Amino acid sequence: MIATYQAQCQRRVDAALESLLEPPRPELTRLYQAMRYSMFNGGKRVRPLLVYAACEALGGEPLQADAAACAVELIHAYSLVHDDLPAMDDDDLRRGQPTTHKAFDEASAILAGDGLQSLAFEALADARHNPQSAELRLAMIVSLTRAAGPAGMVGGQAIDLGSVGHTLDQAALETMHRHKTGALIEASVRLGALASGRADEHALQALHSYARAIGLAFQVQDDILDVESDTATLGKTQGKDEAHHKPTYPALLGLDAAKAYALELRDQALHALRPFDQGAEPLRELARFIVERKH
Amino acid sequence: MIATYQAQCQRRVDAALESLLEPPRPELTRLYQAMRYSMFNGGKRVRPLLVYAACEALGGEPLQADAAACAVELIHAYSLVHDDLPAMDDDDLRRGQPTTHKAFDEASAILAGDGLQSLAFEALADARHNPQSAELRLAMIVSLTRAAGPAGMVGGQAIDLGSVGHTLDQAALETMHRHKTGALIEASVRLGALASGRADEHALQALHSYARAIGLAFQVQDDILDVESDTATLGKTQGKDEAHHKPTYPALLGLDAAKAYALELRDQALHALRPFDQGAEPLRELARFIVERKH
Repeated sequence: MIATYQAQCQRRVDAALESLLEPPRPELTRLYQAMRYSMFNGGKRVRPLLVYAACEALGGEPLQADAAACAVELIHAYSLVHDDLPAMDDDDLRRGQPTTHKAFDEASAILAGDGLQSLAFEALADARHNPQSAELRLAMIVSLTRAAGPAGMVGGQAIDLGSVGHTLDQAALETMHRHKTGALIEASVRLGALASGRADEHALQALHSYARAIGLAFQVQDDILDVESDTATLGKTQGKDEAHHKPTYPALLGLDAAKAYALELRDQALHALRPFDQGAEPLRELARFIVERKH
Repeated sequence: MIATYQAQCQRRVDAALESLLEPPRPELTRLYQAMRYSMFNGGKRVRPLLVYAACEALGGEPLQADAAACAVELIHAYSLVHDDLPAMDDDDLRRGQPTTHKAFDEASAILAGDGLQSLAFEALADARHNPQSAELRLAMIVSLTRAAGPAGMVGGQAIDLGSVGHTLDQAALETMHRHKTGALIEASVRLGALASGRADEHALQALHSYARAIGLAFQVQDDILDVESDTATLGKTQGKDEAHHKPTYPALLGLDAAKAYALELRDQALHALRPFDQGAEPLRELARFIVERKH
């Protein structure tokens, strides 16, 4: 069932992304090809799904959430393109395909990432893409700049790079993950809620608790899968985290305790959704799916 | 006189940038150091000056323009950090100092650039930084995303990289420069005008013509200086453009014709300002300064 919902969200956001990624003039074709290659590579669109599901949890329509769904995925995609660069994680493959700097070149990958970040904020700011009130558009932009920027996702990547070879305790590891991946997941849920036009402070707080729990659950499960899966299933180089001496939850807690922790976080997420009605079912299913997935 | 005005603008924008660049937590100290290093390196703050001067040309106060001045300089600084990377222009020096990836490392330079771009939009969106109406803040963000993004500055850098080793005619060279440097100069003037709260369509159009002319004049003069100056005066590696087989105006038109073209562009800029009163004097002085400067 979550697979059907995921496919619907993917179709919606991909159609909206298509229109954002049309090259405005022929000289820019190659740059836009690199950006499109970075965007359309079989990604599961988890963050857009969160946007749509949070909007729906508050009774909003998908149309209201399209721009926010594009924006969070543009930020996510740009971060992957830059993280894969030789000077960063130095990955040749992503989802079984050559990374952007391998399919194009390093300069194109740097610029494609830079351009995708700009487009994310343009998608939110421009009324033609985001038919919301000026106040709501600004609230979305402020949330996304904080989540994506140096106090959020970019800061998390910096903490991660600085932690290679060091021993992090669980608190330090969670600080890293809350910045690197959690901030954008939290922003996805918040932007979806704002997009509904019906978000009060109580709803935003409950959804924040939900997002915080699933963000961490997602990371714990990723670490577990990195230990357990082989390269073919995962579509990236297996055991990479361990090879880079990055701290992981299985390494820190042991594999069984990491699995128990993932389930505990799922339950926290479900608990946070208790005030919501049937509209929050996709959010609930996602929380279950995150800790049950095999790749 | 323009030097005094420039120093005033520099002090204002530097104070505002300082408060945007305070690390929110100790784990992020190194990232923020890299961002601060990239921002505070003796830059002349030409784009903030344009913001303040355009705001003043319409009778606005400097306070109204601080956030816009920060935003355009954050975008400019991020683009320099990324352009200097080994995979791009591969520059070791900027204004006589090690470039960010030399002073820190490549990963830090990529992340610092990414973070500075996010901060630019945060500075415009957040009412605590930008005390303007929601509509004006959004108009500024839309203008800056377009100018900075793949259809603007990032696109210009892509065209530039794609043109290395090719022969560009004057029209193709101007397309490249209008994207790479012109778009952000035009946005600086537009944001300053918007910040005044008094910009009508006529004023915006006149200021756009001004900005377009000085943007190109700036580039033509840069090319002339690259041929004429030595490395010590310029603070960067002299003759770099020619060594990389990048087309320049002196190469295309000859040195004398390039100088005449710079003066013609200055006159176009001054002509565009004829409807404005004394408040536009800093803009006029800047147009004169651009083609008279020696570095």
